[in-house]
Amino acid sequence: MSQSLDIAVIGATGTVGETLVQILEERDFPIANLHLLASSESAGHSVPFRGKNVRVREVDEFDFGKVQLVFFAAGPAVTLSFAPRATAAGCAIIDLSGALPAPHVVPEANAPVLKTLGKPVQVSSPSAAATALAVVLAPLKGLDIQRVNLTACLAVSSQGREAVTELARQTAELLNARPLEPRFFDRQMAFNLLAQVGKPDADGHGVLEKRLVSELRELLAAPLLKISVTCIQAPVFFGDSYSVSLQTAAEVDLAAVNATLEAAQGIELVETGDYPTAVGDAVGQDVVYVGRVRGGVDDPCELNLWLTADNVRKGAALNAVQLAELLIKDLL
Amino acid sequence: MSQSLDIAVIGATGTVGETLVQILEERDFPIANLHLLASSESAGHSVPFRGKNVRVREVDEFDFGKVQLVFFAAGPAVTLSFAPRATAAGCAIIDLSGALPAPHVVPEANAPVLKTLGKPVQVSSPSAAATALAVVLAPLKGLDIQRVNLTACLAVSSQGREAVTELARQTAELLNARPLEPRFFDRQMAFNLLAQVGKPDADGHGVLEKRLVSELRELLAAPLLKISVTCIQAPVFFGDSYSVSLQTAAEVDLAAVNATLEAAQGIELVETGDYPTAVGDAVGQDVVYVGRVRGGVDDPCELNLWLTADNVRKGAALNAVQLAELLIKDLL
Repeated sequence: MSQSLDIAVIGATGTVGETLVQILEERDFPIANLHLLASSESAGHSVPFRGKNVRVREVDEFDFGKVQLVFFAAGPAVTLSFAPRATAAGCAIIDLSGALPAPHVVPEANAPVLKTLGKPVQVSSPSAAATALAVVLAPLKGLDIQRVNLTACLAVSSQGREAVTELARQTAELLNARPLEPRFFDRQMAFNLLAQVGKPDADGHGVLEKRLVSELRELLAAPLLKISVTCIQAPVFFGDSYSVSLQTAAEVDLAAVNATLEAAQGIELVETGDYPTAVGDAVGQDVVYVGRVRGGVDDPCELNLWLTADNVRKGAALNAVQLAELLIKDLL
Repeated sequence: MSQSLDIAVIGATGTVGETLVQILEERDFPIANLHLLASSESAGHSVPFRGKNVRVREVDEFDFGKVQLVFFAAGPAVTLSFAPRATAAGCAIIDLSGALPAPHVVPEANAPVLKTLGKPVQVSSPSAAATALAVVLAPLKGLDIQRVNLTACLAVSSQGREAVTELARQTAELLNARPLEPRFFDRQMAFNLLAQVGKPDADGHGVLEKRLVSELRELLAAPLLKISVTCIQAPVFFGDSYSVSLQTAAEVDLAAVNATLEAAQGIELVETGDYPTAVGDAVGQDVVYVGRVRGGVDDPCELNLWLTADNVRKGAALNAVQLAELLIKDLL
């Protein structure tokens, strides 16, 4: 391919934005000009790309006519503010913020949806949890999954850099036997588990939990799939872990499940009897790790799995770049 | 009550044994003579009781004829070695090791079982997870629970003092950017989640997982209850957390559930919209904390809960002392 695209990344100084730029470089994405954008607070910083430091500029002043593709990797408010200008300029949009009513796509699960999109293209890269789950559950659809029971143990990095700093600070205070005054989190995060991520709605559900249910149903094209989900915050810096129990219509054939997962794209199945961890396996990797593949203690229609995935890479930045790779032929 | 018992505690220098002695004192259990016993390695240490230091003696040399009640708070091998001698001497046994084929009892769930026991009495205090779950699920039996989906996030103290020291050591090494060489755990425990506690069997189930299923069914007198369970090891020193999703036969009435939990023994229900944590609520407390009481996102026959409990107290030592309190009239 000799042609290249002009691209903008909004939110380029965040954890996800920076990783996105790094993945664009790693995967040799055909870029002519890369525009890194952020709010006025972060503008002026630089981000390394292809051996140079690229200056981050204010998104407010950007002329979207200069690019064909925009990644929205900042918060939902930023997407809602600037997506109309990008669309008016004819840009394709890959949204990582969950703000746009655009179809959610994980290439391993529902890539064909990309061919149905109108112009200019708008597509959403789902939440990290829905992405990891979809990669693993899509190839298992043959099991006729009736229900997904999930406890998602999220790394603090899913809440940004401040949360990472706060976990380190709290841990150091406690190890030095100094009194703890929580800052970013509303209570002790170090050596503790928080049962809720963000404020719950009137029914007690977190935003992420409801988002996961709706995104996963969409990604698996299973609008009636029953999903019970609890998202908790674990004292882990990077890498999400998922405890998954599936209920199936027919008896589970574990050998067939293992063969299916072994053959599937984007999955690394660990040896029987072993299990992956966020820190030891997932962090910095592109695949979703799967282990503890086992049936129920005595229910033949139950399948249990333990997944770990890099919440910043496959959970966000990598999936967005994969979407861009699939869209590139239409954009050039 | 004017009479008192002569008691032996085996495993008195362990985390659970020490707490057991402390709880016997706190609750003013009627003790005439307290004999603290341990293996030859730990004999010679002292444990405080009623303002004195009680010397720990070798269990090997103990004359069980001196006591009416024995707590087995060491490992299963110790129970299997010495229970026959205690029984031959006519002692009642409360076993915390899971080694004896004696009925499991949690007073809040199935106290009437105690009245059916032969002499000398043998009763098992269940695993920490089964105990916490039984306290909360027993009063909810009216929901006609069809299935329990559980992810149990266990504190490292459930593996003893060495595990606690190792989590602290690993954390300090990492914060000081020194290379990590795991000792007690086979990999990094600090800032990580381990998906398995102990070695799995050929089917991939952990001993604790199978024990939980069988104990919980017994405690709830629900031999056919479907239970899916994953026990994970969290980087938390003390206090277990449980992510629980129940499937019920009929629609869940949340107001009724809240009223039932509010009225039940041994439970502290936190305010709607809030949640308890291991560190902030459960540790050092006698009750099981319950929060995040909510239905399914759109399944009316689903009930989700988050529990935290002190794994050493209610999960072990306290429950054992409660059993002794209920048995005392028969023993005096």
